[in-house]
Amino acid sequence: MDNKEKNFTSENGDSSSKTTPQTASKDGSICGFDSLHRLLQACLSPPLFQEASRMLLGLNCGQALETITLPDPAAALASKHDFDLQAYYLRADKESLREPRIVRVGLIQNSISLPTTAPFSDQKRAIFEKLTPIIEAAGASGVNIICLQEAWMMPFAFCTREKRWCEFAEPFDGESTQFLQEFARKYNMVIVNPILERDIKHGETIWNTAVIIGNRGNIIGKHRKNHIPRVGDFNESTYYMEGNTGHPVFETVYGKIAVNICYGRHHPLNWLAFGLNGAEIVFNPSATVGELSEPMWPIEARNAAIANSYFVGSINRVGTEVFPNPFTSGDGKPEHAEFGHFYGSSHFSAPDASCTPSLSRFKDGLMISDLDLNLCRQLKDKWGFRMTARYELYADLLARYVKPDFEPQVISDPLLHKSA
Amino acid sequence: MDNKEKNFTSENGDSSSKTTPQTASKDGSICGFDSLHRLLQACLSPPLFQEASRMLLGLNCGQALETITLPDPAAALASKHDFDLQAYYLRADKESLREPRIVRVGLIQNSISLPTTAPFSDQKRAIFEKLTPIIEAAGASGVNIICLQEAWMMPFAFCTREKRWCEFAEPFDGESTQFLQEFARKYNMVIVNPILERDIKHGETIWNTAVIIGNRGNIIGKHRKNHIPRVGDFNESTYYMEGNTGHPVFETVYGKIAVNICYGRHHPLNWLAFGLNGAEIVFNPSATVGELSEPMWPIEARNAAIANSYFVGSINRVGTEVFPNPFTSGDGKPEHAEFGHFYGSSHFSAPDASCTPSLSRFKDGLMISDLDLNLCRQLKDKWGFRMTARYELYADLLARYVKPDFEPQVISDPLLHKSA
Repeated sequence: MDNKEKNFTSENGDSSSKTTPQTASKDGSICGFDSLHRLLQACLSPPLFQEASRMLLGLNCGQALETITLPDPAAALASKHDFDLQAYYLRADKESLREPRIVRVGLIQNSISLPTTAPFSDQKRAIFEKLTPIIEAAGASGVNIICLQEAWMMPFAFCTREKRWCEFAEPFDGESTQFLQEFARKYNMVIVNPILERDIKHGETIWNTAVIIGNRGNIIGKHRKNHIPRVGDFNESTYYMEGNTGHPVFETVYGKIAVNICYGRHHPLNWLAFGLNGAEIVFNPSATVGELSEPMWPIEARNAAIANSYFVGSINRVGTEVFPNPFTSGDGKPEHAEFGHFYGSSHFSAPDASCTPSLSRFKDGLMISDLDLNLCRQLKDKWGFRMTARYELYADLLARYVKPDFEPQVISDPLLHKSA
Repeated sequence: MDNKEKNFTSENGDSSSKTTPQTASKDGSICGFDSLHRLLQACLSPPLFQEASRMLLGLNCGQALETITLPDPAAALASKHDFDLQAYYLRADKESLREPRIVRVGLIQNSISLPTTAPFSDQKRAIFEKLTPIIEAAGASGVNIICLQEAWMMPFAFCTREKRWCEFAEPFDGESTQFLQEFARKYNMVIVNPILERDIKHGETIWNTAVIIGNRGNIIGKHRKNHIPRVGDFNESTYYMEGNTGHPVFETVYGKIAVNICYGRHHPLNWLAFGLNGAEIVFNPSATVGELSEPMWPIEARNAAIANSYFVGSINRVGTEVFPNPFTSGDGKPEHAEFGHFYGSSHFSAPDASCTPSLSRFKDGLMISDLDLNLCRQLKDKWGFRMTARYELYADLLARYVKPDFEPQVISDPLLHKSA
């Protein structure tokens, strides 16, 4: 299902080799390119590409995108297993009283491995096998924290409304968590593990959950998705309810992290809450398709990073998943058996409004960035958003808004309802 | 001060005329182009430009940017007075029970006219004279609602910290309001009028205020800037305090509008409040400079439009303003007498995540768009952000956060403070 991909993986590709544009395909591919960044790189002269990409990546005048050279074994794994591997440096200013706090963070995006008609146990094992070299590449690169995509251990079957897919759900300390705990121990790595959870102690209920695995393989805690979509084929509200874990920030050896799962990225208040609780990096493991959300994708995470003075790691799965039985989208169009194209495009956003390029729209990938967490406080000191936010106004407004008899503050033109 | 401008105003310019790239100048010009959109238009082949701009404007696959042809007198005024004139259509789906609610909305950006050393009365009169043909062009185009830039009736002198610039302040129904009331009556136009206000009844205090003028020239009400910056040369907190008017939405004959003045755009809660009070269009009249905020400019307004299911009209002044006495920025760099380059780039954002191209970074301009306000409710029904927002969680969190003894929700790795 990745056969539309093009190979423009080199960051220093020959920009003179202009390709013949193709028309946009069903998966919304950009004239055959797998990201806007790579399209511009292939088609603009080097100085114009540098300037256009500087604008698109939110870099200031004279500021350049800084890449990291990874160890050969990581590059070899990417080449052998055909996943997109990119690595960048997001710097902070040097301080007088604090050393830099540089954390190497990784984001993994992947398609499923076997058809959804294969036995469930085979499907899950095949995903484990597919992920292994990508996680190994992260380990070989010295990555400190890694986050996988939403419900990575299964197809994103919630479009179907069929309850048999609940079989994939696991206890928070189940098979998938155990699989990743091994890597956490092996590489001294914190791993954010978004799964479909079965809550055994509460009557075997289902949740959309991220389990936080510490760098020694211990389970630090979990967070459950706060906001559940009811849009398009995203029939997740058929499967699980809004999370009951608040907005926890997990203090790990590498920094304070939080997880805003998928649809929660559309809610600025959800982003805000993780910020108020002290997050320095918020991951947004997602599964979302092109026609529905791609225009929003480059906007929401960057805005959250700016507004809350933290880093954001955005992850989206890739590929098109086809299910055995057809379903409809409630949009009057014919029934269909595929969810649409999950467009990948995982990337980092920084509190200074900059961001990295995105991973491929088609290929599995590992995005690595060195984040100097000092940048968070530097931006707080510079812009003062917390101190100028007037939270008491909004505490009062929301307290009034949630009451059934809320009256909006509206000032009507007194001439409005008089005749001329 | 606009001598860096380039003429790429035609939306259908000959894309084969590739220009020699120039290096970025002090004002952050993009290789001599005045917007990323125009750079790409001049340098990419037509199908690639169409695809890249579709991505940048947040349009879905197959969706094209739709321009409006304006009456000849409007185009003639733009040509004669050398301002950038652009016009677009932001459509909604056809509904069965409601007619389309199409409102023609205009945004005006302008540089000051005389040097800041000229007598104040001359400076203000010269700005009035400069704005007259731009407002006339809006009138000739049948614009229903127009918004001017922040404190349009004066240079943005707050960098200086000199109190003599307070002389420009006016009562909410003063000279500038009266100047615009004439146009409101003449063109049956609602006008949003952001001024430096002197509050006579409260001891002649100073506010940063937007006065809402109804389509019959009546004053509907006013709103005062909620969030005041303390960053870079933005020494506005020396001049005025945080506004005391809440988050009013003004019900006009053309729809429900609100005003988020300048720095308030960095606060998602401020945007949210106008949404909760029912705004369909929120204007963001601004005055902001390239080095400080330009990477944030394409992000924040679009995010607000998405998250709150309303349209946003973003306006920024243009040009570089030089003041008589030097001042510093508190960044250790030498004193200077200019505020930096106000980069214009006014544009509209829509609730479906699309946006228009931006006006010039250098020239005065009038951005017009036909907005079908039905799009707001259509997006609310489609995405359900209000219904999935769980405001009660955040009312509770903010009520706790504003207390001095707030404790963030942090889950620490229990192994964190044990030695290995």
